Parts: sequence; C-alpha cells; structure tokens
Amino acid sequence: MSLRVGVIGAGVMGSYHARLLREATAGAHLAAVCDADPERATAAAGGARTLSDPLALISDPEVEAVVVASPDATHATLALACLAAGKPVLLEKPIAPTAEEGWQVVEAEVALGRRLVTMGYMRRFDAAYLDMKAAADEGRIGAPVLLHNIHRNPSAPDWFTGPMPITNSFVHEIDISRWLLDAEMVSARVHAGPGGEPLMIVMETDSGQIVSTEVFINARYGYHVHAELVGREGTVAMAAPASSVLNHANRHGFVFPDNWVPRFAQAYRDQMQAWVRSVASGEPVGASAWDGHCATALAEQIAQGMAQGTVRLSLPPRPAPYGKG
Amino acid sequence: MSLRVGVIGAGVMGSYHARLLREATAGAHLAAVCDADPERATAAAGGARTLSDPLALISDPEVEAVVVASPDATHATLALACLAAGKPVLLEKPIAPTAEEGWQVVEAEVALGRRLVTMGYMRRFDAAYLDMKAAADEGRIGAPVLLHNIHRNPSAPDWFTGPMPITNSFVHEIDISRWLLDAEMVSARVHAGPGGEPLMIVMETDSGQIVSTEVFINARYGYHVHAELVGREGTVAMAAPASSVLNHANRHGFVFPDNWVPRFAQAYRDQMQAWVRSVASGEPVGASAWDGHCATALAEQIAQGMAQGTVRLSLPPRPAPYGKG
Amino acid sequence: MSLRVGVIGAGVMGSYHARLLREATAGAHLAAVCDADPERATAAAGGARTLSDPLALISDPEVEAVVVASPDATHATLALACLAAGKPVLLEKPIAPTAEEGWQVVEAEVALGRRLVTMGYMRRFDAAYLDMKAAADEGRIGAPVLLHNIHRNPSAPDWFTGPMPITNSFVHEIDISRWLLDAEMVSARVHAGPGGEPLMIVMETDSGQIVSTEVFINARYGYHVHAELVGREGTVAMAAPASSVLNHANRHGFVFPDNWVPRFAQAYRDQMQAWVRSVASGEPVGASAWDGHCATALAEQIAQGMAQGTVRLSLPPRPAPYGKG
Amino acid sequence: MSLRVGVIGAGVMGSYHARLLREATAGAHLAAVCDADPERATAAAGGARTLSDPLALISDPEVEAVVVASPDATHATLALACLAAGKPVLLEKPIAPTAEEGWQVVEAEVALGRRLVTMGYMRRFDAAYLDMKAAADEGRIGAPVLLHNIHRNPSAPDWFTGPMPITNSFVHEIDISRWLLDAEMVSARVHAGPGGEPLMIVMETDSGQIVSTEVFINARYGYHVHAELVGREGTVAMAAPASSVLNHANRHGFVFPDNWVPRFAQAYRDQMQAWVRSVASGEPVGASAWDGHCATALAEQIAQGMAQGTVRLSLPPRPAPYGKG
Repeated sequence: MSLRVGVIGAGVMGSYHARLLREATAGAHLAAVCDADPERATAAAGGARTLSDPLALISDPEVEAVVVASPDATHATLALACLAAGKPVLLEKPIAPTAEEGWQVVEAEVALGRRLVTMGYMRRFDAAYLDMKAAADEGRIGAPVLLHNIHRNPSAPDWFTGPMPITNSFVHEIDISRWLLDAEMVSARVHAGPGGEPLMIVMETDSGQIVSTEVFINARYGYHVHAELVGREGTVAMAAPASSVLNHANRHGFVFPDNWVPRFAQAYRDQMQAWVRSVASGEPVGASAWDGHCATALAEQIAQGMAQGTVRLSLPPRPAPYGKG
Repeated sequence: MSLRVGVIGAGVMGSYHARLLREATAGAHLAAVCDADPERATAAAGGARTLSDPLALISDPEVEAVVVASPDATHATLALACLAAGKPVLLEKPIAPTAEEGWQVVEAEVALGRRLVTMGYMRRFDAAYLDMKAAADEGRIGAPVLLHNIHRNPSAPDWFTGPMPITNSFVHEIDISRWLLDAEMVSARVHAGPGGEPLMIVMETDSGQIVSTEVFINARYGYHVHAELVGREGTVAMAAPASSVLNHANRHGFVFPDNWVPRFAQAYRDQMQAWVRSVASGEPVGASAWDGHCATALAEQIAQGMAQGTVRLSLPPRPAPYGKG
Repeated sequence: MSLRVGVIGAGVMGSYHARLLREATAGAHLAAVCDADPERATAAAGGARTLSDPLALISDPEVEAVVVASPDATHATLALACLAAGKPVLLEKPIAPTAEEGWQVVEAEVALGRRLVTMGYMRRFDAAYLDMKAAADEGRIGAPVLLHNIHRNPSAPDWFTGPMPITNSFVHEIDISRWLLDAEMVSARVHAGPGGEPLMIVMETDSGQIVSTEVFINARYGYHVHAELVGREGTVAMAAPASSVLNHANRHGFVFPDNWVPRFAQAYRDQMQAWVRSVASGEPVGASAWDGHCATALAEQIAQGMAQGTVRLSLPPRPAPYGKG
Repeated sequence: MSLRVGVIGAGVMGSYHARLLREATAGAHLAAVCDADPERATAAAGGARTLSDPLALISDPEVEAVVVASPDATHATLALACLAAGKPVLLEKPIAPTAEEGWQVVEAEVALGRRLVTMGYMRRFDAAYLDMKAAADEGRIGAPVLLHNIHRNPSAPDWFTGPMPITNSFVHEIDISRWLLDAEMVSARVHAGPGGEPLMIVMETDSGQIVSTEVFINARYGYHVHAELVGREGTVAMAAPASSVLNHANRHGFVFPDNWVPRFAQAYRDQMQAWVRSVASGEPVGASAWDGHCATALAEQIAQGMAQGTVRLSLPPRPAPYGKG
C-alpha cells in the first residue's frame, strides 16, 4: 500500500525530494537513493538503501517508481530507462538538454501507450499559480488576454552561461504560461538590457494572447518570482510570498526567500504528494513528457533565434495521448 | 513503520483529520474511525475500519495512536482512556469544558510519568505564527513587550452562547499568546462593545507584557485572524492570508477564507505530520496537556470574573514534566 | 482678497506653517513672523516682517489672522489675546497645558459669541482619516463599534517625561477618536508594558464603543501611526503611508517617515488651506476650542487617574456654539 | 505679487485648473477664463472675468500667464500666441496633434530665446514617480536597466479610436519614461492582444535600457496606473494608490479611483503650484516644449510604424535651450 520510491541524484534537489518522501508524503516511502558519491547518497537516504548505478535503481524490483534529479544531461536517458522498465517517473526539468533528445522520451512514451512521465515543473502546484488558474477558469477575470511574468534570481552561478537564462530559467515561464493560458506559443521576441541583462521576452500565443516576461538572473536583492494574469474583466496576481511582515530599522515589509527552494517548498511537497497519489490512481497530474518537450523545444528555438529578431516557434503535432488537438 | 491511527469523531474536524491521515501524512495511516453515526464514520474512513464505541477504538490493539475530535464534553474522558491505554493522543481543543476536568488529565499524565497528550492548538503550526515566534526568539524585534490579536468570525452559530466567545474563540489567543511570549497571564480585563460585541480583552503577563485581543464573532465580512508582536526594536505581524490578489469591479485585494478550516489548512496538515513524527521519536510537539489546562482554566476564570472588572488569574504550579518552573 | 496672516513662533512647526503660507496656500500670505529669537524669525519670514512681541503681532492692524505655534505654556494666553482682538487663530495643540486654562479659552469664545479658534489637530485633514470617516458616515462598514489606534515614535526627546505620552502624544488619538466616532469618551484604562512602556489604553464612549490605543514613544524602528475602524459590516484601515515600495537587500517594503512632519505634510497643508478658506467664508473647520479643551481635559484626567485603575471621565456641558448637545 | 492667470478651455481639465488657481495655489489667482460656451466659462470662473476669444485672453494686459486646456487641435496655435505675447504658458498635453506642428512651438521658443512653455505632463509631479526618480538618482536601486509600466483605463470613450491608445494614452508613458530614465527612446515594438487589445509595447533607450508598457484602455475594473523601475541592485515601484483599505463582503483591499483626475489630483495641484513658482523665479519646471515635441513625435512614429514591426525612432537634434547634448 505504500509506494516504494527510488531517488536518482542526491544533490540539492534529489536530497530534497528524498526528504519529502521520508518525512512529508502519504502513501509512499523512500526505498533507495542513487548517487555517484556514496556519502551524499547515504546522507539523503536517511537509512534507506543506497546505490551508485542509476540503471540498477530503475530495474530494482524493490523500486516501484522513480524520481530523477540527476544532472540535466542524464534526464532523457534515465526517463527512457524508466519507460523501458514500465515504472512511473517524476523527472526534474528539463526533459533533456536538447529538444531532439526530449522528443525521444515523448516517442517512447507514445509507443508504450501509457503515460509514465511526470515533469517536475513544480510551479503548477504553487498556491498562487493555482489561484490564478482557478480565477481564470472560473471566469472571475474574464477571458485572459495577457500574462506578465517576472523571474529574478539574486545572482547566477559561474556555470550559468550562454543560453541558460532562456533554457534553464525562462523555461519555467514557458511551462507555466502554456498551462495558465491553456494555449501554445507561436512567436517570441527577446530584448536584452544594457550589457545583456535583464531580458525582456514577449511571446504571443495561438489565440493572440501576449506573454511578457522579465528574466533577471543577477537581480541582487533576492529571489523573486511574480506573475499577473490580465483578463477582460479583471486581473489576478501573486500575493506577497511571505507569511509575515517586519517593521524594523525604518522599513516595513517582508523578507525574500534566498532561492527557489524555500519559495516553492510547499509546491514541491504538494507535487510529490500529488504524484504519489497519481501513481496509485493512474490519473496523470502535472506536466507531461509532451509539456516537457514543448518547454525545452521552445526555449531552444528562442535561444537559437533571438539574435535575429522575432522567433517563429513551431512544435510537432501533439500526440494523441496528451489530450486535445 | 507506519503508525496506525484511530480517529474518534467524524464531524467536520474529525473527517478532516481522517483525510489528512489518509492523504497527506507520512509515516502513518488511518486505521479506524469511530462515530455514533455509522454513515459519517464510513464516509470519513475511506475504506478503513469503523466503530461506534470510542473506548473500543482506544483499546483496539490495531490502533497505536488516537485523534480525538468528538464533542467537547467527551474530551477529558477520552484523553484519560488514552492515558490508561498508554496510547498517544492528539486531542482537539479544549481539553475539557471545565478546568477541573482538564486538571484530571494533567494529573493522570503526571501520574503516568510520560507525556502522551498533544492538544490540537493548530495555530502553533501556522507559518505566520512560527515566523513571529522565530523573529522574537532570534532577536529580530528586540524583547517582546506587547501582542495585538484580532479574531473575527463572520457569524456565530445558534449554539454559540454565553461565555463561548471567551471559552471557545478567545481560548485560541490565550494559547498562542502564552506560546509566543513564553510567559504566563496574570490578569485580564474584558471590555464589551455596544450590545455586548465585539470584545476587547487586555491581559498582562508575569513579565509585564501586554496582550490585547479583539474577539468579534459576528464580524460579517469574513473569517479574519491577525496578530502583531511588538518588540523593543521592531514588530512582526501576520502577512495577508492569501496566495493571490484580485483586481475586479473597482476593488484591489484578496478574498478572505470562509472559516478557520481553509485559513489553517496548512497548519492542520503540519500539526498532524509533526505529531506523527513526535509519536515515533518520543519528542513532544505542540501544546501539552498542561497548556490545554492553562488555556481552559484562564478562559474559565475570565468568563466567570469579567463582569466584576479586572480578573486576577491563577494557575496551579506547573508540574515538572511540563518544563521550566 | 489675500488674507494677511501672522505666525507666532518660528520653531519647527511655526516655520513650517510660515512656509505653507508663503508657498502653498491660496488666498493668504505671510504678513509677519514673531519669535523671541530674531534670527529664527527672519529665517521663517522669508522677507515678511518680523516681530519679537507676540501681543504686538496680534494687535497689529496689518495682521488679519494668526497662527500660534509658540511653546505650549503660552497657547491659552495668546488664544485669549486673539479673541480679544477679534482675530481668527489657528492654534497648535494643545489648547493649554491644563484643562483649567483651556476652559478659559472656551469661555472667552462663548462670551464673544462667535468662533474664532481652530485647533491644529491636523489629523482631521489626513486623507486616511478622512477616508475612514467617510466610510463610516456613508455606511460602508456598518455602525462603528471599535477603533484601534497605534501611535509609535522612534524615540522620545529628553524633555518628554511624566504624563507627556498621554498629554502630548495620546491627546492626538483622543481628538481623532472623538471625531471619527462622533462620540464622547466616558472611561479609560491604561495598561503599561514592562518598565512603563508601551502604553495600551482602552477607552469607552457614551455609545458603548471601544477605543483601543497603543502609545509607544520609543518604538525605535520609525514613526508609525495606524488606525482601523471596525463596524458591524466591515472595517476600514489606514493604507501604508508611502507612495512607493522598494525591493532591496532581501527586503520588500516601504520606508517609514522619520517623524510626524513628513507623515502629515499633506494634512498640514490641507489644514492651512481649509482654515484660510474658513476665515473667508466664516464656516468653521477642524477642531474647535471645545474640542481642544476636551482633548486636554480627558488627557489630564487620564494622566492623573491612571495609576488608580479605570478612570471615569467627565466634561462640562457642551456650550451651545459648539453644536449638538 | 499674485500672478494673474488666464485659463483657456472650461472643460473637465480647464475647470479643474481654474479651481486649483482659485482655491489651492499660492502666489497666483484666476484672472480670466475663456471658453466658446459662456455658461461653462462662467461656472469655471467662479467670479473671475470670462471671454470667448482665446487670443483676446492671451493678449489681455490683465493676464500675465496662461493655462491652455482647450481641444488638442488648438494647442500649438495657442502656445505660439503665448510665445508671441511673451507670456508663460502651462500647456495641457499633447503639444499638438502632429509632430510637425509641435516642432513649430519648439522653433518659436528657440527663436524667442527663453523658455515660456511648460507641458502639463502632470505625472512628473506625482509622489510615486518622484520617489522612483529619487530612488534611482540617489543610487538606492543601482543603475536603472528596465522600466515596467501599466496603464489601464476602465473603458474608452466613443471618440477614442485609431492611434489614440498610442498618441493619447501611451504618450504619458513616453514622457515619464524619458524623464525617469533620463534617456532617449530609440526603438519600439508594439504587440497587440486578441482583437487588438491590450497593447504591450517594448521600447529601448539609447543606453540600452528596456521600457515595457501595457496599455489597456478597456480594462473594465478601474483606472490603474502602475510602474516599477528595475536597477542593478534593487527595484522601486508605485505603492497602492490609496489612503485606506476596506474589509467588506469577504474582500480585503482598496478601491480604485474612477479615472486619472482623482488618481493624479495631488500631482495636478503640485504641478500648478510649481509652475506658478517657476514663473516667478524664472527657473523652468516640468516638461519643456522639447519634451512635449518628443513625446508627440515618438508616439506618432510608433503609431504609424507599428504594423511593420520594430519602429526605429528618430528625433531632431535637441536645441541648446533644452539642456544636454
């Protein structure tokens, strides 16, 4: 009755997922952790079994479902192995470093004939985004016509170079915008600020809606994600991401979280719980492999074309298992 | 490895706790539900066993720990039965309708020599109150000197009469104020508004701190709990209890929850998880039987003495198992 | 057509009023400034005449109306001189250091048979308080039943001793509460925090409404005035006293003003403009001498009686020229 | 000593300016009002003289300075007449319906050799924008790199057609963005939402900064202007445009103003006072004729070119009287 989950990768996110499985998820427990570094694996496992070979974890009969939080370059390979083993997988974003690789995951899942891949686009489980989607779906703001996104990180790590502000940061806004608007993106235009940052990206959807996004990976003051969805009768926006406000040293206000982990702590927890429940029920939740491919493909096209002006975006036809169209 | 929990009472709160055990708590599962009404019991049980006799549930060998969410009048009796059975119990507030009865629970626990009772004062697990306590404990606002509380309900049910605004509503502020300030209340004065409502209650602690509380059980506009803790260097207050804000029909702002259940949904979930973990570890969490007795005794003294002006509050000496003093 | 106004006192407030008359008030101009210190007078006068004798300024035929911003001890004497000269006066609060002296001003005005005294309780011209009063008067919150006030100063000057937190700070809340609720205060009870501060004062009105006020004159973090008026159908509260909000150094929020002058800058300006217009029209505005006496008398009674518990408040009958009753 | 001001146009804005001169401006008074409709003129004049010929008002020796609030088509002609008469003029925006006409005003002023024209871009006097500019100028947010603007009207009047969302609404953001960033716009790209609205306009400055603006003239829910200036170390944004917040009918929040007049009431008043002071001192304030031309020229180029993609913006060299470069 309790799902036996194995976690691949014991870095920041893998350890976090492992802890959620140990301490905060009903109907599941942590069966094994895999990492090349045995110390990290042991620390994350909290008493559960450890392995060093991810494929061994995936094929282990004691493991019923898999969380993949290993380096991006391994995502597609491990997802394919999970599909081959017929095991549900919660796959950290992105689906793959390239759209081509990501598409192989989609094809394999389509060939298999059932959906086993859930992409870890955790924002879909954040209370603010869920509120925004509900407000739109329930007609409280009229037909959505515009979405403003802001995505600010205090500072980029050394290895965060080249197209990564698009492919690793903005990819979150691609996914959440597709989901909030229930629409596909057809074009994008990237404006870069002085010296290359921040980016201001304007996308248009197949329904003519506009998605504007600021991506500022060196915003210094804190980790700050914001969104406002504009409809014909009103708008709905994220509230302050804080439980309390402080009056101190001449200032009133709240303190920003340091990074995405505290900001989306509850979303990660709800995502894990929803995924475990989904494995039990067979009803998919969250972003699909198709969504994962779309996000990566669109980010890739934007990163490659942004220097030439407006980028026309294109996607393959949506395979039948992924719903409408 | 998974704690087998029985829930007594399948009303609003009992069903809610049962669902948390079924769907959102790691390390535990719902083993049985007891209610006089078999339909309610079955609905709450979601497939688990149902009983009609609470004492049978408590003594059932398949039940390792108990959640009591039955009518207030039964709380003390059932808590005593759990103590007699040596089983941990998460007891909905109040500990008993009278301080005298509540004291019996404390005495029984002291006699037993180990702490098995956790009071369901769920606000101690609310992110805003936790932030406030952390801000105070970490010195971010200087020494706390004053606490403002606001407790508004849209409207009181028919049966909510007599001293209940004190004994059933304000009792929450008694508990959270004792916890936030880590101090004991020594006096209280109740001011009643026009026609008896709202109440404005001022308490003083044994450290000279002031606790001011508005209790307005027919505030009409919504369920609204607020608090601000004032220190010598700053203050910390609850942020807006909302994930999103709406612009609509000439108004900007957020929507109030209907009642305490959505407002404290996350606190209830975190309380249940913390309690289950506490049962496993043996480390107490949350409010103790002593805290439960204090809240009920102070509320009782205030309700009985409020018409005569300032009420001098008194408590028995704190028994050793409950820490300092 | 342009009212010739003389200002007595060239300290912080007198200079401020003089500048408003020179630079920001229609229908009036600064005719003269009086101060014992000729340099201060000259600086405040900005080219207008200067005097050293306040009575000479009041009797000067070139001066048609007077602003009194001299030390508190001189207020009543100068107000009486203005009444004797038949000249309108905008009198900084308090009306006098004692209720007895303040009452002489009321009596003199009653004897004169026309209202010439306007008390400088500038909060009555603050946009937030005006909003709150309008919300109450227009029925947007139902019948008012409770008013919460917060009055925090960063730190008290050396000379701010004894009853001054009541007679100089809280006196503002006495006035604004009488005005907002259109009611008279009948009792007060003062709770003092650890070491004497902050104060938490609960007053009751002749309609049974409750007024709760925190007075914290050493709140360190900034100058902060707040109020929430609670009605039977809703509440109305001050918004953040800020035009902008900052994201910086991990904090979101606004910056507090240093003291009451920037906080109430617009209220002072609107008060001056309204008073000048009122002199021209003959229609009184703002707080009357009666209001000034009430504020001082109530503060005096509270300061004198607070150590003995609940203070029963009393006022003489309201003289006819001051309206109802 | 009191400036005699004539107002041309007694519509909404002209009447408003006339009232400010009568009731809320130091150092000036309303000398005359001109309107083709004598009733409107009389109503606005409040006792001052009325005329029907604007050129007669401009040449009237009793009029020392002029406010032009007549229909847009007359702006340039009347500004030229003021220049010919050597009289300072506060000219409602836009400077003219076309850039070509607006340029004539600039040329005439340059030929005259002194600055007499002040454009009524009142947002430059709004407390929030002033805060934002001060925060940038004082280094509180680091170097500005991006400006987000939102400009929402509840609904457009019938006559508001064609390019007017650009030339009449967005023109405000052109002016305020040039001023806040102290930079010139070099390109613009307009994205139109479903059915043509809202507009999302991205401009770039000669320093590489980005200006993003939503213009939504049928946003239904209220009049709402917002801006956030993003710097390398932090951001500064408008606070809620409200003095008070309401809890009522399950909602918390503030009420939007109906239109720009209440939203910018204080800015209009401060603009008038600053202009009157500027006429006395000879020091220009606010937007110049050059700024007026720039705003109109850029709006015109954007409106004309928006259908063809990115619009390259160009301006004549800045004439010497208008400062740098």
